[in-house]
Amino acid sequence: MPNKIKIKFPDGAIKEFDSGVSSFQIAESISPRFADEVLVAEINGNMKDLSAPVSEDAEIKFHKFDSEKGKEVYWHTTSHMMAQAIEELFPGAKFGVGPPIENGFYYDIDSEHKFSDKELEMIETRIHEIAERDLKPVREEIPRLAAIEYFKTKRVDPYKVEILEDIAKDQDVVSLYHQGEFTDLCRGPHLPSTGKVKSVKLLSVSGSYWRGDEKRKILQRIYGISFPKKKLLDEYIKRLEEAKKRDHRKLGQELELFLISQKVGGGLPLWLPNGAIVRNELEKFLKEEQIKRGYEPVYTPHIAKIDLYKQSGHYPYYKDSQYPPIDFVDETGKVEQYLLKPMNCPHHHQIYLSKPRSYRDLPVRLAEFGTVYRYEQSGELNGLIRVRGFTQDDSHIYCRHDQLLDEICNVIELNRLVFDTFGFSEVRTRLSFRDKQNKEKYGGEDTLWDEAEKNIRDAADKMKINYFIGLGEASFYGPKLDFMVKDAIGREWQLGTVQVDYVMPERFDLNYVGTDGQKHRPVIIHRAPFGSMERFIGILIENFTGYFPLWLAPVQVIVLPVSENSLDYATKVYAELEHSGFRAKLDDRSEKIGYKIRDAETKKVPFMVIVGDKEKLNKSISVRKHKDGDLGSFELNEFIEKIKLDVLNKTIYL
Amino acid sequence: MPNKIKIKFPDGAIKEFDSGVSSFQIAESISPRFADEVLVAEINGNMKDLSAPVSEDAEIKFHKFDSEKGKEVYWHTTSHMMAQAIEELFPGAKFGVGPPIENGFYYDIDSEHKFSDKELEMIETRIHEIAERDLKPVREEIPRLAAIEYFKTKRVDPYKVEILEDIAKDQDVVSLYHQGEFTDLCRGPHLPSTGKVKSVKLLSVSGSYWRGDEKRKILQRIYGISFPKKKLLDEYIKRLEEAKKRDHRKLGQELELFLISQKVGGGLPLWLPNGAIVRNELEKFLKEEQIKRGYEPVYTPHIAKIDLYKQSGHYPYYKDSQYPPIDFVDETGKVEQYLLKPMNCPHHHQIYLSKPRSYRDLPVRLAEFGTVYRYEQSGELNGLIRVRGFTQDDSHIYCRHDQLLDEICNVIELNRLVFDTFGFSEVRTRLSFRDKQNKEKYGGEDTLWDEAEKNIRDAADKMKINYFIGLGEASFYGPKLDFMVKDAIGREWQLGTVQVDYVMPERFDLNYVGTDGQKHRPVIIHRAPFGSMERFIGILIENFTGYFPLWLAPVQVIVLPVSENSLDYATKVYAELEHSGFRAKLDDRSEKIGYKIRDAETKKVPFMVIVGDKEKLNKSISVRKHKDGDLGSFELNEFIEKIKLDVLNKTIYL
Repeated sequence: MPNKIKIKFPDGAIKEFDSGVSSFQIAESISPRFADEVLVAEINGNMKDLSAPVSEDAEIKFHKFDSEKGKEVYWHTTSHMMAQAIEELFPGAKFGVGPPIENGFYYDIDSEHKFSDKELEMIETRIHEIAERDLKPVREEIPRLAAIEYFKTKRVDPYKVEILEDIAKDQDVVSLYHQGEFTDLCRGPHLPSTGKVKSVKLLSVSGSYWRGDEKRKILQRIYGISFPKKKLLDEYIKRLEEAKKRDHRKLGQELELFLISQKVGGGLPLWLPNGAIVRNELEKFLKEEQIKRGYEPVYTPHIAKIDLYKQSGHYPYYKDSQYPPIDFVDETGKVEQYLLKPMNCPHHHQIYLSKPRSYRDLPVRLAEFGTVYRYEQSGELNGLIRVRGFTQDDSHIYCRHDQLLDEICNVIELNRLVFDTFGFSEVRTRLSFRDKQNKEKYGGEDTLWDEAEKNIRDAADKMKINYFIGLGEASFYGPKLDFMVKDAIGREWQLGTVQVDYVMPERFDLNYVGTDGQKHRPVIIHRAPFGSMERFIGILIENFTGYFPLWLAPVQVIVLPVSENSLDYATKVYAELEHSGFRAKLDDRSEKIGYKIRDAETKKVPFMVIVGDKEKLNKSISVRKHKDGDLGSFELNEFIEKIKLDVLNKTIYL
Repeated sequence: MPNKIKIKFPDGAIKEFDSGVSSFQIAESISPRFADEVLVAEINGNMKDLSAPVSEDAEIKFHKFDSEKGKEVYWHTTSHMMAQAIEELFPGAKFGVGPPIENGFYYDIDSEHKFSDKELEMIETRIHEIAERDLKPVREEIPRLAAIEYFKTKRVDPYKVEILEDIAKDQDVVSLYHQGEFTDLCRGPHLPSTGKVKSVKLLSVSGSYWRGDEKRKILQRIYGISFPKKKLLDEYIKRLEEAKKRDHRKLGQELELFLISQKVGGGLPLWLPNGAIVRNELEKFLKEEQIKRGYEPVYTPHIAKIDLYKQSGHYPYYKDSQYPPIDFVDETGKVEQYLLKPMNCPHHHQIYLSKPRSYRDLPVRLAEFGTVYRYEQSGELNGLIRVRGFTQDDSHIYCRHDQLLDEICNVIELNRLVFDTFGFSEVRTRLSFRDKQNKEKYGGEDTLWDEAEKNIRDAADKMKINYFIGLGEASFYGPKLDFMVKDAIGREWQLGTVQVDYVMPERFDLNYVGTDGQKHRPVIIHRAPFGSMERFIGILIENFTGYFPLWLAPVQVIVLPVSENSLDYATKVYAELEHSGFRAKLDDRSEKIGYKIRDAETKKVPFMVIVGDKEKLNKSISVRKHKDGDLGSFELNEFIEKIKLDVLNKTIYL
């Protein structure tokens, strides 16, 4: 009689099985249909092949394609299938690494054959064939030295040998996965069968240095993705095209919003006049809202002595994400080191320290659109979203402990206003608390952490926020409240972190005199509803496909005279619009009206005012709206009043 | 019979004199009174003692105290007189250098005696005695080696010996000046007699390293000034006190406008909330005026690759006035050098280059409040006036040659608006042209220079500007138009340079397509009416003694309840003021009304609204104005309308 083991399910139920039962059999015990959908098992937190035997009491969790971990395994197996397909079609190919990624997978291939679109199609077809063969990936564990011998002699793959000799050098035993004639060095786990893969699409091929080292050979990296249903793939491709259409780098260029100039440097965007209008309007909006709420604008320099950042702990701790210091010798021979500021905080603390503060003076809310500089790897740079220089809508609120709850509520309210203004109605909120099991990861006293977390939770409750708790997601300085916002095509962006900080007041010896005449420590809230102007505007461009709400549109109205005849009237209309405070343009080129309309559509100008003989005679205007087309005839004043309201209400056009 | 020589006077007249005549005798030939006022002669461009013989035909020019050169000699002789006084009073003192400076003179003294205010008074009295002795400074020229011997043995002054052995080592012959018992090594010239000095004031004493070298001894540097009339000295002292009262560093601290923190670094001001309001209002004002005039705001980063500055010529040419480059190695091992930007121009040129431009697109007017960083010696730093990081209200206008005149006129008009807004009514304008004798000092072609200078002159004529021409004052890039503005106490500041530039369009290969379909070079105008926000606000603080016009005042109105009784009414009044858009404060401390008024006066709040029982009953307010005192009783609305007008009109209070 085999031993019995106890298996505990996520819902808390416990069932007995024979020792050596496979996870697949356990899944089958729930229902055959369930077993069919399951891709991989998590046994006591470790990912395992469904075929692996379970021989001890364990907690089990199954993953289907709908979970992150399920997708990971799904795409990982598909990458092996791609390698197998390539090996069959292009014998002699050698294989680097082939991991799953956020969306799909890639494999780095060394082949004399240059893979073009035609080859990708061939490979795609072959992967589908391999799926139909319904091969079961088989795991084999062997000594590392035997594996080296295997890849040296049997498969003759120098890349796998290098991995085994270098990256895996501390392991005694490694695992191979066999799948039909194809064998790969792999930690696994994998799908129970290649047949699970239903729909594959190879997306692109690009060059990639072996192990990221530009002195090594460039391998061909083929990207792909796969799904258990054709429909899911179709949806994904559609989303991809939608995202491509919305790509802020492409739109940024077409709409002349910003410029990345290699003469200036990567990750250092220059704002063209159109983009500067958007940024300036956003800054004006937030500045006004902040002043209403008692924030005080300040300005601080973009460099500071490095000691300031040693005191805050940003240097050398975050050294790798900073520009190197500037060594500076003054005329008396004194050596000073300056750092391009990676944060505004220490500067603001100097302002807090510039005079004695009393309990009556708090809260002090210092606000700055402060440009900071951080080092990002050049490969990580991405338009406005990932940059090396960016402007934070930064603020530091110095308050008493008894003011903390109200201040967090006020900050939440402002964040909400910002999200609502841009139509971001789907917001997930995470209360990022510390993991009490790992106290050494965090600074500051226990009681302060408890107080801060309680205040954050109370504030979230008071503001009727639907939140979840992220244990271990707090920063070193204190707990946070993070907002994750869904954009128009369902992508999620983290915006507007609110952070409570007890550490910096200690490090900078910040204090105020209380009612008791004694010195007390204030607590600091760090917050930035936009995050950075660059990233936020990048997100807005993609969210609105460059079709900004009227109050942000670089050109709000363009006046298009039908012919030379109506140019004088068009000029008057244009002047009236300008006079009424709109960013208006007059297209007085002697082009056909159809051409002018198409041009204005391309530039995503919200309103086109078309005036021809009829309009001139009736003292009226014809209005077209971007995407919506003809809105009919208006009196100019009536139209101006209408669009003034759109500006005032920050109306979003869909 | 002595030879005759011809002397030519500034008015063109030529007179004959005997060879060997002294300049003094020549002056006497005009009138004894004139000779009495004359201090020094300029013979063929060289400054000479009045007693020196003239033995060749020459052009002569006399200087009185009213000329720069006259003052220089006057103060130089006074510094010798001070040294003589010190030698008489404190035997054994050794003397470093004692030059005239912009206002007065100093002498560096090595003495065991520590000079305090009491000693300064004693010295001052002795200088007056030396003046009464009416000593004639006598020039003696001797071989340098003899002079060394003299200062080694006779006067035992190691400083003079060091000067002779080091600084003067290339001269064979040097000059001494004897004045009674006192002898100094000096190039001269000097006054004809110590009796010319009527009124002397020793101003201060401070430590100064010998030859600026911190490894050498600290000498005592005594500063002083002298005048031919007591009245002039009194006026000067008064102006000095006035300037001290207006010192923007002192006011900047008292009014909490800005902060220089040594933790951040010298010359890197942080704008406190009050100062940030002033700066923000100024930026808003200029931004609006610029947008009305067709300027387009842009934003550019604070660093750029150094090659950009090599292309512009700013590096390494201006290397000494820049922060050292940041050496930067990216993840692929690529080395890049970045420079903190000392200028915004090259960034704006990149924006100009970001798309093809046609003749129809010009002028392009790019504007940015761009913060730049330049190295200044730490000894040169001065509050907001001389800094290492500052924000220029910068703009570059790219125009066709046929647009240049109009564009210069527009820029002049905007400068005038700025000057008028701050009540700067006394403005001198210099057209800074090149010196055609020194063409190698300037870049660009002759014809372009002529065109640019003609356009500047035509623009100045068209704008009815009363200008003078500064030959040789042009910059390397092209001619300029400089405005020198007088402040409230008569000091002159250079503000708002307008520069025409033909060189950068070449260096950056800027062009536009003309009506002929061919590429043409635009011309650039550089301009900044404020110059830098820091320096401009420093000047404003001093000009207004911190008492800003209402539209700029950090706090515009403060409401002062007389007692607890009127606090509720005061709160309503305060809310109404805030609601009407004013920066209002409520002083609800339980202090006496007199104390609150004095406090508001110190803070230079333009208006105090005082409410007590009477005002509460009558629903009125009592208004006090800073410096002017009680303005009487008002209805709140009436008062609000009145001060709204002051904001709108940017009224200046005197």
